[in-house]
Amino acid sequence: MLSDEEWFQMQQCFELFKFKKGDILLDTNAICNFIGFVDIGIIRFFEIKDGNEKVTAFWFPDDFLSNYRSFLSGTKSTHYIEALSDGSYWRLSKEDLWRLFDDYPKIDRLGRKMAEYLYLIVAERLDNLLKQSPEERYKSLINNNSRLLQQVPQYMIASYLGVSAETLSRIRKRIYTK
Amino acid sequence: MLSDEEWFQMQQCFELFKFKKGDILLDTNAICNFIGFVDIGIIRFFEIKDGNEKVTAFWFPDDFLSNYRSFLSGTKSTHYIEALSDGSYWRLSKEDLWRLFDDYPKIDRLGRKMAEYLYLIVAERLDNLLKQSPEERYKSLINNNSRLLQQVPQYMIASYLGVSAETLSRIRKRIYTK
Repeated sequence: MLSDEEWFQMQQCFELFKFKKGDILLDTNAICNFIGFVDIGIIRFFEIKDGNEKVTAFWFPDDFLSNYRSFLSGTKSTHYIEALSDGSYWRLSKEDLWRLFDDYPKIDRLGRKMAEYLYLIVAERLDNLLKQSPEERYKSLINNNSRLLQQVPQYMIASYLGVSAETLSRIRKRIYTK
Repeated sequence: MLSDEEWFQMQQCFELFKFKKGDILLDTNAICNFIGFVDIGIIRFFEIKDGNEKVTAFWFPDDFLSNYRSFLSGTKSTHYIEALSDGSYWRLSKEDLWRLFDDYPKIDRLGRKMAEYLYLIVAERLDNLLKQSPEERYKSLINNNSRLLQQVPQYMIASYLGVSAETLSRIRKRIYTK
């Protein structure tokens, strides 16, 4: 557990950023130099390949927000981070985070736990992609993220699942007419 | 950087395990309580779904070796770790690693860097799976792991790529007759 002093030091470094629907929070070819947490709103993480959008993630309040690959490796982002609604997020710069890691071993440990947690999320997603059918993936998506259904366009959900809009429509029909 | 004392403490905790081709180093339904590094040999990480093997990873000398998901979350492994050749690996128990993290902040930091590194590997794999065609995936596989081609049965490579053996055979033909 962090001490009051450690919490205080960390909180001092977080800044609240507001955004409008459609704002690009990270552009392709930029190096991601922050991590953040969604305060209010919905955000998506996607790239454009051969003219098609490929959605990798949707983020909701309290979700971790970063191109963590670009952040860790210092390489240019191949993805966009885009706001799907008005909202805000808490942002911590890489410079501040590295300094906190150097100054406070317990915050460094928190950074380990964060990396481990993010590993588990991406490993589960990879595992699901390898072994689940699109219908199974859709079911686990709506079980975990029922908010998605109301607030995100169907074509983005289809892209996230790696299927066409027509396939998603067939899957939905099969599930809801059972 | 670790001090001599920290290196010494860590090395004390690693044990060398020998294995024979076909040995199961981690069974399904077991909780993975170790991390390791391949010393000699080839190892694969796979699961069985609907009677079919799905290969998630191949590991060679110096590669990290663990069901890191099971290790971190304490959940039962859904995958097997199997030796594809005779060999050996260096093994560090969870208990020892947690103790080292508690006693040596710099080893804790090394643990963070390890988690970050493993995050990058799995995120890149997810990214490739989402956006590359099977032919592109095969090309990046042989660029990064040319040893695979000599030492691993084709049907396992097809499983790793998520294609049938026939599709892999067509891909190889296309590439090598260019």
